[in-house]
Amino acid sequence: MPTVTETMRGPAPTKRCDTKQKMLISAAEVMRERGAAGVTIDEVLARSGAPRGSVYYHFPDGRNQILAEALRYSGDSITAMIDDAAGWGAKALLREFIEFWERLLTDGDFTAGCPVVAAAIGSDDDEPKLSAEAGAILGRWCTALTQAFANDGFDDDDAASLAVMSIAAMEGAIVLSRSTRCVRPLSQVGEQLEFLIKAREFVGRNGIPGKHDGSPDQT
Amino acid sequence: MPTVTETMRGPAPTKRCDTKQKMLISAAEVMRERGAAGVTIDEVLARSGAPRGSVYYHFPDGRNQILAEALRYSGDSITAMIDDAAGWGAKALLREFIEFWERLLTDGDFTAGCPVVAAAIGSDDDEPKLSAEAGAILGRWCTALTQAFANDGFDDDDAASLAVMSIAAMEGAIVLSRSTRCVRPLSQVGEQLEFLIKAREFVGRNGIPGKHDGSPDQT
Repeated sequence: MPTVTETMRGPAPTKRCDTKQKMLISAAEVMRERGAAGVTIDEVLARSGAPRGSVYYHFPDGRNQILAEALRYSGDSITAMIDDAAGWGAKALLREFIEFWERLLTDGDFTAGCPVVAAAIGSDDDEPKLSAEAGAILGRWCTALTQAFANDGFDDDDAASLAVMSIAAMEGAIVLSRSTRCVRPLSQVGEQLEFLIKAREFVGRNGIPGKHDGSPDQT
Repeated sequence: MPTVTETMRGPAPTKRCDTKQKMLISAAEVMRERGAAGVTIDEVLARSGAPRGSVYYHFPDGRNQILAEALRYSGDSITAMIDDAAGWGAKALLREFIEFWERLLTDGDFTAGCPVVAAAIGSDDDEPKLSAEAGAILGRWCTALTQAFANDGFDDDDAASLAVMSIAAMEGAIVLSRSTRCVRPLSQVGEQLEFLIKAREFVGRNGIPGKHDGSPDQT
């Protein structure tokens, strides 16, 4: 099974789709660094080294199509990764994601965040459509991670709620770590998520400690 | 003590600073909806109803100054709010914030998110400076919320870690709720945060249940 890092890097481009894929990877990179509004055709061409004619050959609808496809490309690789992780357990998957993001932010000098969150926040006229597409991707991540938690033995409500919490906290931690140029928020969130999941597992098996005697942890 | 809603709305503009304050509020609004790249002088003038001459009277450095001051204006009101909340306890404060954001997203038809996160992600040439300023604001929120958790009885490390977790999870939940046009992620994150804080309180008082007998919750 590929690691998070291998999946996020994506497959090595094949000759046939080489140019298109390079353009999508470049567009996703710019989106991670500057948000959707920063993705210009000139920047995508400059980074990918693609000739100008490739734009209308591979993306007849121009910039909007590049944005939409780059977003889908970024999102789909992670959805597949979470789907694949059913066998690992959600805790191990989250740990891998946290470590992956710590490395990515450090190696990239904190210049790039999550492209899907950048698109969700949006910043130009294409925002409503892109934001909705980003919302759909975040929704698919939640559904896939819910399945991983369900496979770990959580009931449906707990699994869904833990999946949303995990994705929200990780995405927030990426924003905090990037903007403060420090990976500590990511590791703190990783530790808290791990504690939360263990506490939910404990309560699922044993009930809430002290509930029978009205212990103050229930206030 | 003012509520979260009163604080986030800010004080009623006084006559003297009326125009400048209206322009800052308008700039913050646009930032919340479209990100920093979407904040143009024309849009700020159109929303605030200020005459064009006000730009260089109140903001001699132009658009960059508007962006920086609008961001500071947004951030400072929340920092003050969290500072004031020492007496309420962190749990009550988080509950108020979750409810505030549920209302704000619903009332605004999910068109606007957090201006500080929008600035943290950045999207144009001013991004490095704005992102750093947004990071500093997020850092101040974490410090203020750490104090609230410390006042609730948590030790320094736990208080800092819970503060980062709370802000990361709430900011992530705002992105999820806005882009999926549904407040459920916010309420799920609110419930999980409340459970997490109670579980940490319990462990702080009683130790980890089952630790002495190697219970599987430690695996």
